[in-house]
Amino acid sequence: MTTDNFTKLGTNAFAKMDKINSELFALTYGSMVSQLIRDHEDTETVNSQLVEIGKNIGSKLVDEVLAKLGCAPCTDFKSTVEVIAKVGFKMFLGISGDVVTVNERENIHNIKFQENPLDQFVELPDSLCKLNYSGIYCGVIVGALEQLQMKVQCDFVKDMLKGDDCYEISVKLQEIIKDTLSDDE
Amino acid sequence: MTTDNFTKLGTNAFAKMDKINSELFALTYGSMVSQLIRDHEDTETVNSQLVEIGKNIGSKLVDEVLAKLGCAPCTDFKSTVEVIAKVGFKMFLGISGDVVTVNERENIHNIKFQENPLDQFVELPDSLCKLNYSGIYCGVIVGALEQLQMKVQCDFVKDMLKGDDCYEISVKLQEIIKDTLSDDE
Repeated sequence: MTTDNFTKLGTNAFAKMDKINSELFALTYGSMVSQLIRDHEDTETVNSQLVEIGKNIGSKLVDEVLAKLGCAPCTDFKSTVEVIAKVGFKMFLGISGDVVTVNERENIHNIKFQENPLDQFVELPDSLCKLNYSGIYCGVIVGALEQLQMKVQCDFVKDMLKGDDCYEISVKLQEIIKDTLSDDE
Repeated sequence: MTTDNFTKLGTNAFAKMDKINSELFALTYGSMVSQLIRDHEDTETVNSQLVEIGKNIGSKLVDEVLAKLGCAPCTDFKSTVEVIAKVGFKMFLGISGDVVTVNERENIHNIKFQENPLDQFVELPDSLCKLNYSGIYCGVIVGALEQLQMKVQCDFVKDMLKGDDCYEISVKLQEIIKDTLSDDE
């Protein structure tokens, strides 16, 4: 499937799904982040909690993306990242990202986007300059791909809340997890 | 304005607003509730935290509802509750509730609804049978009306997660808060 097809698929899927107002989502997410900050003084801990929460969510959402795609599996890792940016982001957030290949051989592809439903009411104070406010996205990607036997590393390399001109998440394939169950069968 | 007009207003407003997938919202909200349960062992504390979070959100969302309504103020408390059920619920959650007057003289009106974007993946274990899982809604209503100088008490009287056939939130007007600022001017 081409990128254009992915975009169409994502847009159609988003149109059909139940939706809520993105501001309510932004405010609810903000409340969760504030709660985590109150509970754990250390920003690093908050960052990893956001990723953990995202992993849990990603592992639940991946089935829906697959159902929308039919059974067509991605032939290479770059297409997988394209599906996340064009189908996944569109289906769940109503936005879509662009994929930039950073290193083909090492399987590093970045997702760039500018509209971010989570940051609508947010300004980071200096004391939280190390907070990955939208870190849940990285977790969602990691959790979703883990379900597909792909271990990836996922990090924000640009963040508009920290003054960058866009958001950019790098997605690096680390390992295809061997499905030990099917080996034993 | 009639109830029908409120419904139209809510539907139009919802159509124009940025939206996200309601499943992602449900899962994110669920993560927040789980986090609160981990942090505070006592269900009562979790219930009041959810209301507090909602109050904060409600006070931010009320301006948007007012902007959509133009300047038409509600002439009585029942219309105010109708606006919450028909405009507010629709604008932010994509659902709408029905208003049932329980006690006109004491200004108690209940909002009934069955579709609840928050409960999509939830089953309450016995240990959490006292949890007001969707308690954030009560907070949002209290917080929004506080901005409009109305002090209300807001409670779930029916909850589908606890086996009831619908959700029902009672909204009771307690006091019109005197705007001391404008008195002094």
